[in-house]
Amino acid sequence: MALDDDWFTEVAPNEGIATSFRVEAKLAEERSAWQRLEVWRTASFGNLMALDGCVMLTGRDEFIYHEMISHPALFSHAAPRRVVVIGGGDCGTLREVLRHPEVAEAWQVEIDERVTRLAEQHFPELTRSNADPRAHLHFGDGLAWLKDAAPDSLDVVIVDSTDPVGPAEGLFGVPFYRDCHRALGVGGIVVQQSESPLLNTGLIVAMHRALRTAGFADVRTLTFPQPCYPSGWWSATLARKGSTLEGFRQAEAARLGGLSYYSPEIHRAAFALPPFLRAALGAR
Amino acid sequence: MALDDDWFTEVAPNEGIATSFRVEAKLAEERSAWQRLEVWRTASFGNLMALDGCVMLTGRDEFIYHEMISHPALFSHAAPRRVVVIGGGDCGTLREVLRHPEVAEAWQVEIDERVTRLAEQHFPELTRSNADPRAHLHFGDGLAWLKDAAPDSLDVVIVDSTDPVGPAEGLFGVPFYRDCHRALGVGGIVVQQSESPLLNTGLIVAMHRALRTAGFADVRTLTFPQPCYPSGWWSATLARKGSTLEGFRQAEAARLGGLSYYSPEIHRAAFALPPFLRAALGAR
Repeated sequence: MALDDDWFTEVAPNEGIATSFRVEAKLAEERSAWQRLEVWRTASFGNLMALDGCVMLTGRDEFIYHEMISHPALFSHAAPRRVVVIGGGDCGTLREVLRHPEVAEAWQVEIDERVTRLAEQHFPELTRSNADPRAHLHFGDGLAWLKDAAPDSLDVVIVDSTDPVGPAEGLFGVPFYRDCHRALGVGGIVVQQSESPLLNTGLIVAMHRALRTAGFADVRTLTFPQPCYPSGWWSATLARKGSTLEGFRQAEAARLGGLSYYSPEIHRAAFALPPFLRAALGAR
Repeated sequence: MALDDDWFTEVAPNEGIATSFRVEAKLAEERSAWQRLEVWRTASFGNLMALDGCVMLTGRDEFIYHEMISHPALFSHAAPRRVVVIGGGDCGTLREVLRHPEVAEAWQVEIDERVTRLAEQHFPELTRSNADPRAHLHFGDGLAWLKDAAPDSLDVVIVDSTDPVGPAEGLFGVPFYRDCHRALGVGGIVVQQSESPLLNTGLIVAMHRALRTAGFADVRTLTFPQPCYPSGWWSATLARKGSTLEGFRQAEAARLGGLSYYSPEIHRAAFALPPFLRAALGAR
């Protein structure tokens, strides 16, 4: 069956799959210095933002990604006071970070200010915490920002970027991870979206290797459903400086209300990896 | 972007989403007494079978569904000797059931023999256990088969059916669940595919209610990724006669080799439900 113009379709060309959403109206389309931005009103997934034709988020399922890229890392840290989000221009990750009372300063370093401006306009539920006095929105290059960060100046680095091609490519390499490692205090954690466990197994394996090469003491991957991304199954990879990622602040995690996907139970469950992925990662 | 004839597309019309696979050749297309059957060779997901336009399975990700519809239920039963698969004509679930040495008899009751014949031809990896002397392939109505089953004659009923519309509709109701309950021994388990946790939350809630109404003592849902199904996230719902579903045979589960998705860790993790789903189910 062919889909007509009433559908927004993202093709994952290397994977031979495509995901489509029925749309009712195009709310925005523009080209920034970095990429082509689109916002659509869909029939049943709320508003949808796409960058260079790739779906970044929909209003219906953004809660899963944003909760899972942030809370497992923050609750794995004993006292996350200083947090930076690299990318994440839609501000959904920042919103989740600011739920944590321990967080004293939260920076968002997004290269493309237009992503944030379109989010403010079309996804107000994502940007509602931007006025929090702890939030600092910086528009610039995340690679450079991390390189300039003082040693031992951060507790958690969240890399909430697009796919590892184009502008985000440098965020998946050893030099960037070395800068993260240097900027983090001992016990500090970097967490990065790491694509689909089924489609991008090789990328996850390469990230583990690169993070260890950069000096991180422990690296672990968690998975979660993400219906709007290719394959509907996604992952985040965490690495810790100086110690293992065993354990998390369960009691605090249980007290954090208002969440739809994350819970202490889900935290533990998300790190359970299927045998095919454990084997790829060389786990016993 | 519009997709041309090189793509097989499944539209989930009520959900406003669609999933597409790049195809290289149509291997079969026919109409049986029950439905329209298609088999395609895809570019990167192996062969694909569709019934009435809905993807049933692909060679690349069938392992997840088939392992998760069968092993959690079988390892939750103390001694699953007598197992029936209702539907499941592709034989992938039967293959997983027959991995269990405790199973003495395994019936597959598929209404449409053509599903099995096409699987034998185009998915030999699914039908490779069909010659097992414990396997009994029966082509007929699963509703009638269960109604005729003697009381206390089964340990596990696996309902591996299409969506709850058309031929499979009766498999999602109290009368069928009562027949299952009667046919199962005490401690017996019924497990049924229960659609997408995100898209079909209401169906899962209704199944819990119906299974309890039919007399089951405990009802639980597990989730798993299933890239080829709408939203990429799927579920199975288990119910037990006479006792809770707490616990499973972990040591035996750890010894079962050759699996790609299921493991004891995954078993525990799959039952962790996100807060939105727990709330819908009325869990504390």
